[in-house]
Amino acid sequence: MSRLAPISGFPEYLPAQRAVEKRVLAILESTFELHGFASVETRAVEPISQLARKGEIDKEIYLVRRLHGDHGAEVAGDDLGLHFDLTVPFARYVVENAGRLLFPFRRYQIQKAWRGERPQEGRYREFTQADIDIVGHSALAPHHDTEVALVMVEALERLHRDLGLPPILMHANHRALVQGFYSGIGVADTLAAVQAVDKIAKIGPDGVTAMLTAQGLDEGQIAQILALASVESDGAGLAEAIGRLGIDNDDLTRGVAELTGLVEAVAAEFPGRITPDLRISRGLDYYTGAVFEIELTGMAGFPMVAGGGRYDALATDGKTTYPGVGLSFGVTRTLAPLLGRGLYTTSRPVPSAVLVAVTSEETRSQADAAASALRRRGIACEVAPAADKFGKQIKFADRRGIPFVWFIGEDGEQTVKDIRTGEQVAADPAAWEPPEVDRTVQVIRADERK
Amino acid sequence: MSRLAPISGFPEYLPAQRAVEKRVLAILESTFELHGFASVETRAVEPISQLARKGEIDKEIYLVRRLHGDHGAEVAGDDLGLHFDLTVPFARYVVENAGRLLFPFRRYQIQKAWRGERPQEGRYREFTQADIDIVGHSALAPHHDTEVALVMVEALERLHRDLGLPPILMHANHRALVQGFYSGIGVADTLAAVQAVDKIAKIGPDGVTAMLTAQGLDEGQIAQILALASVESDGAGLAEAIGRLGIDNDDLTRGVAELTGLVEAVAAEFPGRITPDLRISRGLDYYTGAVFEIELTGMAGFPMVAGGGRYDALATDGKTTYPGVGLSFGVTRTLAPLLGRGLYTTSRPVPSAVLVAVTSEETRSQADAAASALRRRGIACEVAPAADKFGKQIKFADRRGIPFVWFIGEDGEQTVKDIRTGEQVAADPAAWEPPEVDRTVQVIRADERK
Repeated sequence: MSRLAPISGFPEYLPAQRAVEKRVLAILESTFELHGFASVETRAVEPISQLARKGEIDKEIYLVRRLHGDHGAEVAGDDLGLHFDLTVPFARYVVENAGRLLFPFRRYQIQKAWRGERPQEGRYREFTQADIDIVGHSALAPHHDTEVALVMVEALERLHRDLGLPPILMHANHRALVQGFYSGIGVADTLAAVQAVDKIAKIGPDGVTAMLTAQGLDEGQIAQILALASVESDGAGLAEAIGRLGIDNDDLTRGVAELTGLVEAVAAEFPGRITPDLRISRGLDYYTGAVFEIELTGMAGFPMVAGGGRYDALATDGKTTYPGVGLSFGVTRTLAPLLGRGLYTTSRPVPSAVLVAVTSEETRSQADAAASALRRRGIACEVAPAADKFGKQIKFADRRGIPFVWFIGEDGEQTVKDIRTGEQVAADPAAWEPPEVDRTVQVIRADERK
Repeated sequence: MSRLAPISGFPEYLPAQRAVEKRVLAILESTFELHGFASVETRAVEPISQLARKGEIDKEIYLVRRLHGDHGAEVAGDDLGLHFDLTVPFARYVVENAGRLLFPFRRYQIQKAWRGERPQEGRYREFTQADIDIVGHSALAPHHDTEVALVMVEALERLHRDLGLPPILMHANHRALVQGFYSGIGVADTLAAVQAVDKIAKIGPDGVTAMLTAQGLDEGQIAQILALASVESDGAGLAEAIGRLGIDNDDLTRGVAELTGLVEAVAAEFPGRITPDLRISRGLDYYTGAVFEIELTGMAGFPMVAGGGRYDALATDGKTTYPGVGLSFGVTRTLAPLLGRGLYTTSRPVPSAVLVAVTSEETRSQADAAASALRRRGIACEVAPAADKFGKQIKFADRRGIPFVWFIGEDGEQTVKDIRTGEQVAADPAAWEPPEVDRTVQVIRADERK
C-alpha cells in the first residue's frame, strides 16, 4: 500500500481528537435546535456556473469529473464543483424549495466544504463549517440580526463553559451605519471605502489613507473615516461617541440604533462577549446590515473563527427576494489547530466505560451477557478480545483509559474493579451504575491533566 | 439565479425528512458507541492510485481538480478522487496511524461517499454510509465476526422498534465453508465458482450452470454446488444439512462451525433476523470468512441495504497485515426511497416545541425572556417573528406543527395553550414541562398518521 502520507490541507483526527470534535458538534446542534433551527444538508456539488457567480474565489474551486466516461456535461452543459461554503448551496436550496419551506425559515447546516487554496495554519482545503441563517420571504425584521448573534454567542459560550475552549469576542458592525456615515461626509463610492477600512488591521491607518486617497477622497473625509473606525465604545455609549463626529444621515441613525440594540441585547446575556467594531465589514459587497466577526480571545495569531451578517438578497428567483441574516462558525479552523497543538484530549479514546473480562473462551458467553445487561442501561462497554489473566485484562483496559473492569468468577460471582483506585466490589450488571462523569467520554484541557 | 433543478443522483431532503435521517443516524451512533466503537472520519479524497487499486469501479470514480491553476499533481505525481466507499480510506487510515491506534481497533464511520454511476432508484451518486469494522494487528479472533453481526443487527432492530422502519433479515454465509466444499468436490478455481453462484438470484440455476460448465466443471460437481446453494436451514440444523451432501474438508468443517455459532448467537438475541444463505458471497475476492448481506423485509424490489464480511488482509504495510471484519449500512440507499415515497415524516418540521407569542414589539423582550427560561431547561422554542393577534400566532404555530403557544398577558400573566386541544393554563416558564412526547420531534410512519 503506497502513498500513506497525510495530504496537506485535508486534516484527519485520531479517535480521541474526533471525540472532541463530536462533543463540539453536539453542543452546536443542541444549541441551534433549542432556538428552533432545523437541520439542513445540501449536496456537496453545485454547478460550476453557480459557484463561480461571485467571481472572487474562482481559482479555489474544485472541479468534479468522472475519471472515465463523459467528461463534463454532468448537468446539461455544465460542470460540477465542490461547494466552497454553505451559503451558496443554501441560497440555491431556499429558492429551489421555497414553496415547501415556512418563512422566516431558520436552519442550521453543519457540513464539510472544500477550497483548493494554498494551505497554511488556520486554512484548510477540506473543512467543516457550522452555519445558522434565518431567511425571510420578501422581508425579515431587524430583530433577527440580534437573534442569530445571540444564538451563535450562546453556542460558543457553551463550548467555553462546558469544554474549556477559549472564550470568544464578537465584533459587530453595521453597514447602514458606516455607509450612511460615509454618505454623510460626501463619499460617493461608499462600498469601496468600506472595503479599504476593512483592511486596517492588516495595512494600518497609513495604508488605508493611501487607498482612500487613491479613491479620490480628501484629507477631511479620510480623517472622519479614520475617526469613525477608531470609535471605541460599548453599546450604550455608541450613539454619543458617533454623535460627537457631527454627521447627520438617516441610514447612519438607523444603523446606530440597530447596532446599539444588538450589542446591548447580547451584552446583557453574555457580558464581555461582544464589542462594537466600526472597522470590520468582511469586505464583501452583499452585506447590508449587521456584520459580525468572532475571535477566539487569548490566541495570538489565530484567525477569526466565525463571521456573517445581514444580506438583503441572500437569494432571489427573479420575482421574490429572500433576505437573510446568518453566521458561519469554522469548526475545523477552530479545532484543528487546537487539537494539533495537543491542547484538548478526552478522558479515553474509546466510548467504553467498562471492559468485561473473559477468563476462558468457554465462558465468553457469560461475559457477553453481562455486557448486554450493562448496555441495556446505556453503559458503553466492550468484551475482552482474548481470554487472559486478570493482570493482562487490567493492562488492556488501562491502555485504553477504560476506568472499570468487570470480572465473572468461576462461581459466577460478578465484581467490578475501578482500575484507578483498585477498589473492587460485588456488582449486578442489571443494576450497577458508574459515576456519571465516567459514563461518557469527557473532554479534557491539557493544562488540567497535570 | 439559474439551474435550480435537482441534480440526478444527489438527493436532498426537506427539513422533516432530514429530521428523520438525523434520528436514524443518532440511533446508529449510540448503538455503535454502546459497543465500544469509536467514531472516525477520513478526508473525502484519496489519491487516484489508491482508489483505482481494485480496478472494479474505475469508471465510477470522481476526479477532483482545481478549476484553474496546477491541473493534477495535488500529491506528488498523483491526482485526487472522491472516495467511493469507506473501506478503502479506512484501510489507509489504519496503516497510516497504526502506531497510534490500539488493536483490536473498533471504529464506526458515518460519511458521504460518491460514485459516478448511472442513477436509478436505490443507487445514488452521493450517499451516506454507516460502517463498523474491527481490525486486528496480525490476528483477529473469529468471535469478532459474530460481534459485528450482532452490533449491526441491534442497530437496525432499533430503527425498526423505535422508528418503525421495516424489519431486517441478515443473510450470512462463510467463504471457508463454501470454498472448502468446492475444494472437497475437486473444483480448482473455487473463487470463480463462488462468483458464479453469487449471481443465482439474478440469473437462476440455469444461468449458474452455464457459467460453471464454461469453467470446466462436470455435471456432478455442478449438482453438488447447486445442492449446497439450496440448503435451507437455521443455525442448529446447518451441520446436519450440509453433512448430508457427504463432503469432507477441513475448511468446510471450520466454516460450518463458525457460521453455525454466528447464526445461533444472533438468532438467540434477535429471533427471525438472521438466516444462513449459502448462495451469497458479495462477489469480491477479498472476503475470507463470514459474508453478510442484509435485506429490508417486506420491501419488494428493494436492494440489499447492508453488506460486509471478514477479510484477512483489510490492510497491510508490507510487514504487518491487518485482518478485519465489518459491515456497511447504506443510509441513503435505505432512507432516500422510503422518504421519497412519503412513508416517514416527523411530528413537526422544526425543533421548536413552543412558540412564544409576541403581542407588541415593545414587549418582545418579555417573550425573549420566557423563551430563554424554557431553553434553560432544554425545551426548544422560538419567538414569534412579528407581533400579531392571538389567532394569527396560533395559525403560525399550527402551520409548523408547533404544539404549544406561550402567551404573556398585558398584566404579565403567563399562559400556555395546547393548540391541538385548545386547553390553556397558567404557567411559569421556569417550571412548566411539556409532555415528554412533545419535547422532541417524533418520527411518524405514514400509516400511523391516518
